[in-house]
Amino acid sequence: MRGIEGEQVLMRIILSESRRHDREALFTRLLDVLREEGLAGATMFKGVAGFSHDGPLHTTMIEVAAQGLPIVLEVVDTQEHIDRVLPKVDALMSGGIVMTERARVIRYAQAPRPAAPSA
Amino acid sequence: MRGIEGEQVLMRIILSESRRHDREALFTRLLDVLREEGLAGATMFKGVAGFSHDGPLHTTMIEVAAQGLPIVLEVVDTQEHIDRVLPKVDALMSGGIVMTERARVIRYAQAPRPAAPSA
Amino acid sequence: MRGIEGEQVLMRIILSESRRHDREALFTRLLDVLREEGLAGATMFKGVAGFSHDGPLHTTMIEVAAQGLPIVLEVVDTQEHIDRVLPKVDALMSGGIVMTERARVIRYAQAPRPAAPSA
Repeated sequence: MRGIEGEQVLMRIILSESRRHDREALFTRLLDVLREEGLAGATMFKGVAGFSHDGPLHTTMIEVAAQGLPIVLEVVDTQEHIDRVLPKVDALMSGGIVMTERARVIRYAQAPRPAAPSA
Repeated sequence: MRGIEGEQVLMRIILSESRRHDREALFTRLLDVLREEGLAGATMFKGVAGFSHDGPLHTTMIEVAAQGLPIVLEVVDTQEHIDRVLPKVDALMSGGIVMTERARVIRYAQAPRPAAPSA
Repeated sequence: MRGIEGEQVLMRIILSESRRHDREALFTRLLDVLREEGLAGATMFKGVAGFSHDGPLHTTMIEVAAQGLPIVLEVVDTQEHIDRVLPKVDALMSGGIVMTERARVIRYAQAPRPAAPSA
């Protein structure tokens, strides 16, 4: 099947998993915001090591340093949707990065695999 | 050592790990296709959480929600190679995303570290 | 809070976790170099499967093939900082990829969440 194609935006939010918002992990709050805003989807990855400018190295390879590992949240959506959610993400962030890049995106329907297309 | 440098394409395929093709996981089939087509390499990552537009949140943090986690397959190759493999990827996809971006790439030979270069 | 925004560079280093430099893992040496050079931060991810052009498939899904999984090191910094560290990364690499892309970056201070800004 051929999906719907267009220029969209990849937004990546990079933060520490130990960062908190009120009583919950900030990454959980961010996932909720992205979902409430109706974004097309989000994917969250956890790094195995990382450091920030003025901080120590965090790594799963040393047990005592395995706190504060990096989390990356990725969203691919239209510029309009990203622009709408960005102020809400901004309001929650401290100590991390939000980056955006343009990308050519092909988006496929959730439907089960169709019969052979007639054209 | 200085590698071979040029403008290439980063292709990222985002799909659910629970998506199937015939009797195997779709990501396994996609890895096979990328390999059969002789692409320069591929890397597969597994997310720890994710959601798509009309679906539930999947996360490793809640055991009952740990099915259907996001998978990302990344390939860096020439535009020609990406263009050649894309229709075969297209034919297999449902319910995910394929995105491409241009990037400056330095590719290093597999050789063991050489002696100091003469120039 | 609104962070500091600008055009920066995403550098991604892709290599095998089994690649070594002297007596240590190459990815450990690279993390050290990025840190010594004062880069703004780095994040390391480990793939669950991967192959390179002339090599076998590595995957966590088959125990005997779980050696040599792909590692991705990501850095987001200014063009100047990336240009300064690139020759040192170059000197260490064999058998992998370094790629760079431009991205719009918003960088947030490490401070705890501030009171409402006055402007």
